[in-house]
Amino acid sequence: MVNYPNGKKSSWNRPSTPAADRGMDLEHDINVSNAYYLQENIAIIHKKPTPVQVVKVDYPERRAARITEAYYKIPSTTDYNGLYRGKYIDFEAKECASRTSFPLQLIHEHQLSHLANVTSQGGIAFIIVRFTYYYQCFLVMEEKVNSFRKESRRKSIPYTWFLENGYQIPYNYVIPVDYLSIIRELYFKTEETK
Amino acid sequence: MVNYPNGKKSSWNRPSTPAADRGMDLEHDINVSNAYYLQENIAIIHKKPTPVQVVKVDYPERRAARITEAYYKIPSTTDYNGLYRGKYIDFEAKECASRTSFPLQLIHEHQLSHLANVTSQGGIAFIIVRFTYYYQCFLVMEEKVNSFRKESRRKSIPYTWFLENGYQIPYNYVIPVDYLSIIRELYFKTEETK
Repeated sequence: MVNYPNGKKSSWNRPSTPAADRGMDLEHDINVSNAYYLQENIAIIHKKPTPVQVVKVDYPERRAARITEAYYKIPSTTDYNGLYRGKYIDFEAKECASRTSFPLQLIHEHQLSHLANVTSQGGIAFIIVRFTYYYQCFLVMEEKVNSFRKESRRKSIPYTWFLENGYQIPYNYVIPVDYLSIIRELYFKTEETK
Repeated sequence: MVNYPNGKKSSWNRPSTPAADRGMDLEHDINVSNAYYLQENIAIIHKKPTPVQVVKVDYPERRAARITEAYYKIPSTTDYNGLYRGKYIDFEAKECASRTSFPLQLIHEHQLSHLANVTSQGGIAFIIVRFTYYYQCFLVMEEKVNSFRKESRRKSIPYTWFLENGYQIPYNYVIPVDYLSIIRELYFKTEETK
């Protein structure tokens, strides 16, 4: 393997995937996908704004409030939620740089509890994890992740666990993270064949 | 009627309502109601954070990012959404100081479009308006508001229109804005009597 001066591994030995948009991050790709779902009336799913605790605000002009002191807060729920085919959808999405495992600490414990709560009240709850090294994006239902957390003492989930317990999310140029194709398969397949 | 030095009208001729919590604002009261719904496993409904465009961040300490320049953004959707009895819930809430009408400009046009979109995709969408003068809180389904907007040239909705087209939201000490009691009546009554 060749190491480049910037410390990154070369990519010639990685699996072959479309080269476009590779540099873009997961949040951007999900936003693009959600914009497509919205435009095509497929679903209404939005990213929630990052919560900020505002401490000081200046009003240099009449209408332009300028925040001069603020701090990031820990989000009380997940980043994404919305509506798909009459169902409530809720998920958290994370990128993972490691090749071997996903550190569970990247998702707050109360977020996983929130997702479990959503499932128990009739919503559809999952996480999306992108292993950036492999350019692979997985959807895993919340139940699987919460089971792992309860049953295992490990603080990270092995990559191979995702291969067994998750669904690989297809990529295409229009919908870079087409996670609803997985949800459609899991929840609405029988409706369509009726 | 007696006018007090602070310019406010006296309250002795207002309808009799519980005196507690009167000074609290609508957002606070809805948050308290949502906390109760969450705690009792009735529903999972949260206020979305106010969107902020962050321009500059300082890192005085290793872990404490301090935002030193940021601006409020126009929200892309509504303030509240979540899950109730398997149904997706979405609404916007506004206080209104006027005794006679509610200015439509208090709700962005794209928010009303968003609510219409939610209805058409199988969710439950409405607005909550509190007329602070009367201590009355109304729930109005999105369809009614959007009809008014399309059919009327008025830029504000008369108070009397709310009496005819809205549902008055009951108040109690535990759930200051018990809007789900209205939704239960409208959407789940038949299920319960089965």
